[in-house]
Amino acid sequence: MFKKILIANRGEIALRIIRTCKEMGIKTVAVYSTADRESLHVRFADEAVCIGPAISKHSYLNIPNLIAAAEITNADAIHPGYGFLSENAEFSRVCQEYNIKFIGASPEMINKMGDKATAKDTMKKAGVPTVPGSDGLLSSMEEGIKIAKKIGYPVILKATAGGGGRGMRIVANESEFKKAWDDARQESGAAFGNDALYLEKFVEEPRHIEIQVVGDQYGRVCHLSERDCSIQRRHQKLVEETPSPIMTQELREKMGAAAIAGAASIGYEGAGTIEFLVDKHGDFYFMEMNTRIQVEHPITEEVTDYDLIKEQIKVAAGVEISGRNYFPNLYAMECRINAEDPANGFRPSPGKITNLHIPGGHGVRVDSHVYAGYTIPPNYDSMIAKLIVSGQSREEVLTRMKRALQEFVIEGIKTTIPFHIALMDDPQFQAGKFTTKFLETFDFSKIKA
Amino acid sequence: MFKKILIANRGEIALRIIRTCKEMGIKTVAVYSTADRESLHVRFADEAVCIGPAISKHSYLNIPNLIAAAEITNADAIHPGYGFLSENAEFSRVCQEYNIKFIGASPEMINKMGDKATAKDTMKKAGVPTVPGSDGLLSSMEEGIKIAKKIGYPVILKATAGGGGRGMRIVANESEFKKAWDDARQESGAAFGNDALYLEKFVEEPRHIEIQVVGDQYGRVCHLSERDCSIQRRHQKLVEETPSPIMTQELREKMGAAAIAGAASIGYEGAGTIEFLVDKHGDFYFMEMNTRIQVEHPITEEVTDYDLIKEQIKVAAGVEISGRNYFPNLYAMECRINAEDPANGFRPSPGKITNLHIPGGHGVRVDSHVYAGYTIPPNYDSMIAKLIVSGQSREEVLTRMKRALQEFVIEGIKTTIPFHIALMDDPQFQAGKFTTKFLETFDFSKIKA
Repeated sequence: MFKKILIANRGEIALRIIRTCKEMGIKTVAVYSTADRESLHVRFADEAVCIGPAISKHSYLNIPNLIAAAEITNADAIHPGYGFLSENAEFSRVCQEYNIKFIGASPEMINKMGDKATAKDTMKKAGVPTVPGSDGLLSSMEEGIKIAKKIGYPVILKATAGGGGRGMRIVANESEFKKAWDDARQESGAAFGNDALYLEKFVEEPRHIEIQVVGDQYGRVCHLSERDCSIQRRHQKLVEETPSPIMTQELREKMGAAAIAGAASIGYEGAGTIEFLVDKHGDFYFMEMNTRIQVEHPITEEVTDYDLIKEQIKVAAGVEISGRNYFPNLYAMECRINAEDPANGFRPSPGKITNLHIPGGHGVRVDSHVYAGYTIPPNYDSMIAKLIVSGQSREEVLTRMKRALQEFVIEGIKTTIPFHIALMDDPQFQAGKFTTKFLETFDFSKIKA
Repeated sequence: MFKKILIANRGEIALRIIRTCKEMGIKTVAVYSTADRESLHVRFADEAVCIGPAISKHSYLNIPNLIAAAEITNADAIHPGYGFLSENAEFSRVCQEYNIKFIGASPEMINKMGDKATAKDTMKKAGVPTVPGSDGLLSSMEEGIKIAKKIGYPVILKATAGGGGRGMRIVANESEFKKAWDDARQESGAAFGNDALYLEKFVEEPRHIEIQVVGDQYGRVCHLSERDCSIQRRHQKLVEETPSPIMTQELREKMGAAAIAGAASIGYEGAGTIEFLVDKHGDFYFMEMNTRIQVEHPITEEVTDYDLIKEQIKVAAGVEISGRNYFPNLYAMECRINAEDPANGFRPSPGKITNLHIPGGHGVRVDSHVYAGYTIPPNYDSMIAKLIVSGQSREEVLTRMKRALQEFVIEGIKTTIPFHIALMDDPQFQAGKFTTKFLETFDFSKIKA
């Protein structure tokens, strides 16, 4: 087992990793920018090294400084957390070069999964469902109709030069094809000077559902069921839950098997996540693979009693996994508490926390690095806490989350807590009926400041 | 279901009850003494009523003031928490008289279980094992020998006027009886002017193990397995855990059945606890019954996913229970964090908390009413937080508890955290080998301030 792990990150995830290292008897090294001197990860690690100024590029993204910090503290492994360098192939490669174990994916895997087209091809070859389509530009309307027939309606025509919805047409059936084709070409030609189109299956009422996998160095991969992350604003996840309200054991097993097949096909080692879109028919399509721990990993921990960071560290150290899969025995949900003003377009709200009460009690977990008197620097991600609630039913989780949100006192700055309270009161959300587009029509004026 | 519950308590348990009421959609009324104006239970309840000055007798123990507060706020039930009036038959009776549901035992049950001799007799009749003995004073040495033979050695001779260990003799076998008899009589005669003795089975290497029960209004009683509360200082519990390190499924079922038989025999309604002594042979003996929620109830919640306060409220409102028993599916431990200086004989240390960081993360629950800037009044119990940790094995719980304790920052006052850290490092405690006498020989100088 490792003797000392350097954590190349900050905030709650740095603290999260320190916690597990302490429980495993592994020494920790915190790194920090000058803006993070007063951070708890600095206080709770066994050693701490300043790696540069506030600007991430010169500190948390500075590979030479991080390697130097690992060398001088004699760390034998680096945990990158999420964000920053966690999916940086070059960092993974340099760690290898310096004989420091990178607790994450190999440079090859990061490269393979980092490029969307390569990732999709790789998964397709492994038998993982991907969104079917024209595999490139359409040479004629007839070709488009032929492909649409094969993959089934509805389909979506997209301008290769497109963006912001322009040059896009959803086609419900063959009789609509010609008009859609003409409209899309005309629109994209006018807007972008390029009327080339491609075609994809249109995913109806999509939900973002991801499968957590863990692979060891001996080719074994297991899954830990799903997380539903459909509640997003501009592709930023705000709330995650497990089980997904639309999940069946049959679908879970199919998605789990696909995720395992995909991860196993590239010999995946460590914790990873395969993100899928699931449509209203229960068909699912590969979106991308994250070769790192996810922000929302705690909900999986709460329903499986499995410490994912511990498992990451163990498989990185060469421990074998059993290979059995994990299924939820409870319900769990996470609300991301950000220093943002939800009544003003989620504008960042850094500053000093003057008063703080963190909710507690049965079924409530908080992962956070803040304290009363802490000043949130403006330089980084605005997430200041993850409120994770578990219970015996989704209904219990919803009521418990609401009371925990109401009990969460953070004074001195604006936070997303009022948004989450409004969400918990939303009948459609309560009914579990939402897609990735849910927040596009959410009435933010319902938020009570 | 109740519409509004008045909580006749303060501190963490008041907050604990408010939390569950919120999750159940029940309005809450907090009561507070003038010393508790700034308390969180006042902030988080829907309404709050000041019921008197700091001295408990005039506020939290003042029945007319509590009833008046319930009347003016139109509360239809009162939850007494633990301590204060939770086992006060008069309060239970007055609530009945005013047609306010007392969420606890009836006056009759409180009286029955409040008197030790009556409680023991009642349990004996229900077939619950009690410590066998002479049932009163011994008329002669011969009578003592006869009884000892019947109940089996070792036995203990006790002076009826005794105290502080004087006039007490443990007798290992019949050949030692005469000398012990003479010594005990002489010692008690000299010390107390009264040499009358009685005799009891000597419980060898006793552990304090209690069984949680819940009964409904229709005669059903279930148990929720055990809590081992052997780590005590002067009969004050400091650490509790479940499962007990000495528990077997066979013993659990026997103790569970005895607890159910005892509670059912008095038609027990609500949450209650039957405390037993368990000796090194796995024989167990009734000590007493607590007709209220216990401080240590959260460890049972963590291993059964069962909200005990919710269940208390439900059965008080007339909801039926299923009758099935609950067995632990995890391990859990609670450390009571008191505002006391463990390096100075646990001297109370009230005062202002200047800085606070509450531990979080996987498997960590904190029930507390304090915050940074809060001043602990000197008038009440010194417990300021309950740190509850769960995990998949006792070993995981021990390492997690230690890291959570190390992460718990409470500045401005002394706390029992350093004692708990020293305890987690104790090899005998780690091995689960301890009795109720464990702390009598604990080396408190090991505590690092």
